[in-house]
Amino acid sequence: MASILLLHGPNLNLLGQREPDVYGSATIDDYVAACSDRARAAGYDLHHVQSNHEGYLVEAIHAARGNHAGIVINAGALTHYAWSLHDALKTFSGPAIEVHISNPNAREPWRHTSVLAPAVAGSIAGLGLRGYLLAIDAIVDILP
Amino acid sequence: MASILLLHGPNLNLLGQREPDVYGSATIDDYVAACSDRARAAGYDLHHVQSNHEGYLVEAIHAARGNHAGIVINAGALTHYAWSLHDALKTFSGPAIEVHISNPNAREPWRHTSVLAPAVAGSIAGLGLRGYLLAIDAIVDILP
Amino acid sequence: MASILLLHGPNLNLLGQREPDVYGSATIDDYVAACSDRARAAGYDLHHVQSNHEGYLVEAIHAARGNHAGIVINAGALTHYAWSLHDALKTFSGPAIEVHISNPNAREPWRHTSVLAPAVAGSIAGLGLRGYLLAIDAIVDILP
Amino acid sequence: MASILLLHGPNLNLLGQREPDVYGSATIDDYVAACSDRARAAGYDLHHVQSNHEGYLVEAIHAARGNHAGIVINAGALTHYAWSLHDALKTFSGPAIEVHISNPNAREPWRHTSVLAPAVAGSIAGLGLRGYLLAIDAIVDILP
Amino acid sequence: MASILLLHGPNLNLLGQREPDVYGSATIDDYVAACSDRARAAGYDLHHVQSNHEGYLVEAIHAARGNHAGIVINAGALTHYAWSLHDALKTFSGPAIEVHISNPNAREPWRHTSVLAPAVAGSIAGLGLRGYLLAIDAIVDILP
Amino acid sequence: MASILLLHGPNLNLLGQREPDVYGSATIDDYVAACSDRARAAGYDLHHVQSNHEGYLVEAIHAARGNHAGIVINAGALTHYAWSLHDALKTFSGPAIEVHISNPNAREPWRHTSVLAPAVAGSIAGLGLRGYLLAIDAIVDILP
Amino acid sequence: MASILLLHGPNLNLLGQREPDVYGSATIDDYVAACSDRARAAGYDLHHVQSNHEGYLVEAIHAARGNHAGIVINAGALTHYAWSLHDALKTFSGPAIEVHISNPNAREPWRHTSVLAPAVAGSIAGLGLRGYLLAIDAIVDILP
Amino acid sequence: MASILLLHGPNLNLLGQREPDVYGSATIDDYVAACSDRARAAGYDLHHVQSNHEGYLVEAIHAARGNHAGIVINAGALTHYAWSLHDALKTFSGPAIEVHISNPNAREPWRHTSVLAPAVAGSIAGLGLRGYLLAIDAIVDILP
Amino acid sequence: MASILLLHGPNLNLLGQREPDVYGSATIDDYVAACSDRARAAGYDLHHVQSNHEGYLVEAIHAARGNHAGIVINAGALTHYAWSLHDALKTFSGPAIEVHISNPNAREPWRHTSVLAPAVAGSIAGLGLRGYLLAIDAIVDILP
Amino acid sequence: MASILLLHGPNLNLLGQREPDVYGSATIDDYVAACSDRARAAGYDLHHVQSNHEGYLVEAIHAARGNHAGIVINAGALTHYAWSLHDALKTFSGPAIEVHISNPNAREPWRHTSVLAPAVAGSIAGLGLRGYLLAIDAIVDILP
Amino acid sequence: MASILLLHGPNLNLLGQREPDVYGSATIDDYVAACSDRARAAGYDLHHVQSNHEGYLVEAIHAARGNHAGIVINAGALTHYAWSLHDALKTFSGPAIEVHISNPNAREPWRHTSVLAPAVAGSIAGLGLRGYLLAIDAIVDILP
Amino acid sequence: MASILLLHGPNLNLLGQREPDVYGSATIDDYVAACSDRARAAGYDLHHVQSNHEGYLVEAIHAARGNHAGIVINAGALTHYAWSLHDALKTFSGPAIEVHISNPNAREPWRHTSVLAPAVAGSIAGLGLRGYLLAIDAIVDILP
Repeated sequence: MASILLLHGPNLNLLGQREPDVYGSATIDDYVAACSDRARAAGYDLHHVQSNHEGYLVEAIHAARGNHAGIVINAGALTHYAWSLHDALKTFSGPAIEVHISNPNAREPWRHTSVLAPAVAGSIAGLGLRGYLLAIDAIVDILP
Repeated sequence: MASILLLHGPNLNLLGQREPDVYGSATIDDYVAACSDRARAAGYDLHHVQSNHEGYLVEAIHAARGNHAGIVINAGALTHYAWSLHDALKTFSGPAIEVHISNPNAREPWRHTSVLAPAVAGSIAGLGLRGYLLAIDAIVDILP
Repeated sequence: MASILLLHGPNLNLLGQREPDVYGSATIDDYVAACSDRARAAGYDLHHVQSNHEGYLVEAIHAARGNHAGIVINAGALTHYAWSLHDALKTFSGPAIEVHISNPNAREPWRHTSVLAPAVAGSIAGLGLRGYLLAIDAIVDILP
Repeated sequence: MASILLLHGPNLNLLGQREPDVYGSATIDDYVAACSDRARAAGYDLHHVQSNHEGYLVEAIHAARGNHAGIVINAGALTHYAWSLHDALKTFSGPAIEVHISNPNAREPWRHTSVLAPAVAGSIAGLGLRGYLLAIDAIVDILP
Repeated sequence: MASILLLHGPNLNLLGQREPDVYGSATIDDYVAACSDRARAAGYDLHHVQSNHEGYLVEAIHAARGNHAGIVINAGALTHYAWSLHDALKTFSGPAIEVHISNPNAREPWRHTSVLAPAVAGSIAGLGLRGYLLAIDAIVDILP
Repeated sequence: MASILLLHGPNLNLLGQREPDVYGSATIDDYVAACSDRARAAGYDLHHVQSNHEGYLVEAIHAARGNHAGIVINAGALTHYAWSLHDALKTFSGPAIEVHISNPNAREPWRHTSVLAPAVAGSIAGLGLRGYLLAIDAIVDILP
Repeated sequence: MASILLLHGPNLNLLGQREPDVYGSATIDDYVAACSDRARAAGYDLHHVQSNHEGYLVEAIHAARGNHAGIVINAGALTHYAWSLHDALKTFSGPAIEVHISNPNAREPWRHTSVLAPAVAGSIAGLGLRGYLLAIDAIVDILP
Repeated sequence: MASILLLHGPNLNLLGQREPDVYGSATIDDYVAACSDRARAAGYDLHHVQSNHEGYLVEAIHAARGNHAGIVINAGALTHYAWSLHDALKTFSGPAIEVHISNPNAREPWRHTSVLAPAVAGSIAGLGLRGYLLAIDAIVDILP
Repeated sequence: MASILLLHGPNLNLLGQREPDVYGSATIDDYVAACSDRARAAGYDLHHVQSNHEGYLVEAIHAARGNHAGIVINAGALTHYAWSLHDALKTFSGPAIEVHISNPNAREPWRHTSVLAPAVAGSIAGLGLRGYLLAIDAIVDILP
Repeated sequence: MASILLLHGPNLNLLGQREPDVYGSATIDDYVAACSDRARAAGYDLHHVQSNHEGYLVEAIHAARGNHAGIVINAGALTHYAWSLHDALKTFSGPAIEVHISNPNAREPWRHTSVLAPAVAGSIAGLGLRGYLLAIDAIVDILP
Repeated sequence: MASILLLHGPNLNLLGQREPDVYGSATIDDYVAACSDRARAAGYDLHHVQSNHEGYLVEAIHAARGNHAGIVINAGALTHYAWSLHDALKTFSGPAIEVHISNPNAREPWRHTSVLAPAVAGSIAGLGLRGYLLAIDAIVDILP
Repeated sequence: MASILLLHGPNLNLLGQREPDVYGSATIDDYVAACSDRARAAGYDLHHVQSNHEGYLVEAIHAARGNHAGIVINAGALTHYAWSLHDALKTFSGPAIEVHISNPNAREPWRHTSVLAPAVAGSIAGLGLRGYLLAIDAIVDILP
């Protein structure tokens, strides 16, 4: 069965515990479970990687080459400066979608710029867990 | 039956004819039909307004107050300078989602900033018609 | 009887309903009535135009040429980017005063710059309805 | 007979009355008449539209698609911020030439940037009515 | 009898003598007399302080705490860099209004920014002596 | 017979050979011949100077004082940084027009600024050889 | 007995009364008393100067040359623009430490830059009264 | 016994060997020993982590949640761009203090900005090892 | 006997003691004596004012109106931000010359801008005491 | 035998597979083999480290202290923001040379700045594999 | 007899003819004669070079090495961008003084920056011919 | 025999005499001799041009078209602003390599930008004479 890679960057392992007024109370396991269900319903496995290490995220993207059909990525604060992730995403030929739980453009100025944006097919922001599910729907829909 | 307002800004009436390599070949009628079907399947009417006039778009948002449950808006180039639309969206209490067919962050620098972003619940970019359908799904999901 | 033109820009038709913590609960009709009383007491008619259309506001200023003795203008968000209004105001030879209900310099950065400022005689900000009345007083006082 | 569209933006209806030291004393009718003569001499009709509304100018450009052979546009102050006009001009496949009566680069800083420039074939500035006639000559010359 | 503090910053002691084409020929005594009359007519004493010393202006604001009902301040060139005045104004709980004789936004770029703006209730610019009288009217009106 | 000076800056001696996709295949001799014909038809001699040396161009402008009736100048890349040329052009009292073969505003950012603009009567860009001929027409027309 | 100079800039005389949510309820006397005790315990006198006048603070630093062993300075808003204080501090050869009650980097942007920083040995911010005591400890420790 | 976490970022393992003119000759072991003694004297254990990996530092902060009472952090060059550390520090509810051995504001421009500043209680810079001890004192003092 | 005002700003009272590698070993008395001799030789008295207070310098300039024939001013660090001094200098109708001992353009970036420059006849920098003497010579020469 | 360290940063493990139009078809093994041969011919061993982890690269540089005679580094995208690498390179006393396969200055703006530049002896860009060999030649030549 | 080099850059050959309201009516010969007299009176020959060519000015500075005791330079518009002149001046070990007839800081923004400033001993601006004479005096005075 | 053009810009004729701490003691003749030897050993003639004139360097590049196989260029300070050289290099179809003796990125900010970079195949900086030899090696290697 084809699969989708769900990538979480730094601090997202604390989802549900960290600033719940911004990020809500669902845990990362809740996110993975919901995404997994959504993917499975569409005939895809979901593979999940969370890392606080930029280098490991780069390698997870490398490992996705030829192994996963698409990528959903929430790179956390790395979104705003980690050009290595940008370069890694450009090596992946399937669809990649950037997701943000809150709306970065409505927060601090340094969150307004995504260095990943030029390397992804699309982005979804501000819709919480829903945004992830929509990203999976979009990837399923893009894939042949 | 509750309804969702789909708003299109300047030049989007030419969808399908205008720069098809960027925006694809689907016409605005195709977009509206697909969105209408999606909304209807979820139990909502879809009301569509396209205008090349910032002022008319402002008024369409005003008219949505109390009449529509949510807004999906692709404001075209106005996205990048029309603060009046920003102010209008702040007067709407239901969910509003900003949609872009292509990924503005991967195009000219002036398309990288959305003045609407601080006034919307979320944004979806780069996913073509799919982005619209996902936006409708998200609004349906947010509404009680 | 000589007259003064009161011009309101986008979203100000919703005064009283829109962000009442920022703009207060008085409606646009309350504003017009109070301004009208103030003008009449000084021997002037008040002519009121509200429009969400930049082009229509430009034309209202054109129409004021030779017909109104002075202009009080709150251009809403257009204040910050609508250089066409600036050019229009420069075609009007009587006194024009820019008014803002709240104090734009104490709000978001994009509200700190007025593109109308170089084309008006003066500006009054942050004084709510009082600011309008003071603007009328000032115009009455400037006029011969 | 093939035709050329002459487009005038905000405040240009007041040509001859507005800041004559900057814009001269010829009226917009004088401009249209002279352009019309020039076009006719070359075998083209001239169609003229003046509007203070950005949206209407967008639509005039749309209407030119398939109907006019070329466009001469002086968008007034909209030149400096109206990206919707930029996008509209990109939908027009014939030659479009931007004209300015005065030389914007020798005036206030905000007049130094044209957001239309990337969407037009060329631009002519600072030459008054002559600039318009030269623009018509150029379009006639470019057309097959 | 309750009182209003009128504060003048550097160089304003030369009103009437300094750049009369910009600031007019009324002297500071004329300003104070007119303001005093206006205040008295509304039942308030007017207390006037002019100083060329930022520190003394800070202390005048401190002294106003509990002693004056409101403040009208024209800080001269200090308006544009004296953050200590900003901090002082934030310690005053009554209404404070910033006044400028000419319209700073229509002059040199360094006069376009007021560091006092975030600490005052409102501002009035470009209306000469009238602006002061309007400021007093506004304070009288705001006070209970 | 009165004369017009045609000035070409650096690299323009290679017209026709250099980046023909940008600058076309006409050689500098073609340009000069066509301009010469156009000028002569209007009763003017054309004097041509091409130099890769900023200093020599400055001196050619000095030499034009009292000797040529007008100047058509394409300063090549010097357009964007050679303020000495700007100062030289200000010493010339006849009409000077800046010409660009391609549209600099549609190319790299450093080509968007002309340091010559404040010192010329007008500018024509993006119209290839046509632009030169129009510049000559304009000068002929401006001259008494 | 050797001594340490404690310098307070504008508005700090109002400590305890001014924005207590930001600066706490301890008064400047409380600060001085606590610092004095701390210094005395280490064998140093504490000399305190508070002034709202930049010039007086400059002179207090001059007076410290040869008279005080070290300086603890909280220059209030002057921290962010008063280069004269910077130059004064460079004339003092003993250790000088900059102290801030709140954390300026977590407040308004204009508080993020300290013009004193290049002229002091170190800085302590955000630790309230504790920060002062630590600064005294540091100076005591640095002194031979 | 309650404990304090001491965190060192990249290159600080070379303390004493690296640029001794800037950072002094004490080794990281000297720093840890001195901090440990200071903490112990106040009744706290000191736990030390040095890592050259941003991700590992993020995880050390996560691990501190519920396990350590406070954090002293010198993030080395990561201070200036690692927003992931900023986000991690915001997940820690106890007091965190940023320490720098030298005074970053007196060095290269890129060292003048701390992306950690908005997420810490306070910062101490330029005081070498003393700064660490003061930071421990401050944390001990803040803790209940 | 007509007189010239020599004005010294903050920290210049320490000339000879302060950073002698930058400012030399001559004291302010040496400067005044040499300038006095130079002025006297040309038939002018020299009046000297040094102040660390911006407000006092403003007032010294006011006092010079009608009393001194010219001004030589070294405003120290105030040169770079004290717009009040700029405004004061504009009220003085005789020649004023700005002097700097060292060359500010060859030092820190914040010393590269003089806010006094637009209000003085000329400036002399980098020539130490010589610069002062040359300034006096220039004023003597300019005066009728 | 003395040795040279060859360091590769993120994504360079995919050389030959990643954007071959930009980076060519040679694999990282090809690069290492060619460099190794070149070094060996000059009497040096080549030690190669590729890592996608900034922290690991920092540590590889630390490990080179005393163990390798020189460093050739292509840090990939980290070149543009990883100041920790800059600081690490400053701890290495032998020659370090920065290499880029393509010419970063001819690509996206964010690739135009190297934060490593101030910490290396030299840099070579745009010469593909040749650049590496030249870097080795240079190091061999610099070493005594 | 030792000599001083007087260097004039582009357009200054037209002194007296060019913008006399800015530069006065004295010709370059008047300038040279006056400077020559002044130098001779102090025992120095004056050697004068005017060139509109940056390269020639560079070479004149090279030729001054070992041949002239000092340099007075007015580089005209080259002052603001010709870094080659800066580098040339750094190769000259005697005193060099930058002179400007008008006060560049009171003119267009591009004239506010001198790229020569970091390479000269001092600068004199705004004093017309007097400034040259003062510069010669200063050089004479500096020379042993 | 095919040949390589070695181009030196302004001030480089003084190599060995100019700032030897930055540029070393080798003269330009030493550079040319070493490069000539290196080229000859590879079967190429070396043609050398040094000029302080931007225009002459432009023409030397033009002359290289069809006559030289490759170009090694050190344009001195022109590197940082001479866009005419950029345009000239784009007219040359063989390999061109930019060389800098010192590392411009480790010097003043204005030396950090090369306007030639987008027009050359590669660049080598900071390696002194070695950099030139490596550039010749690279060109030899690139040529067929």
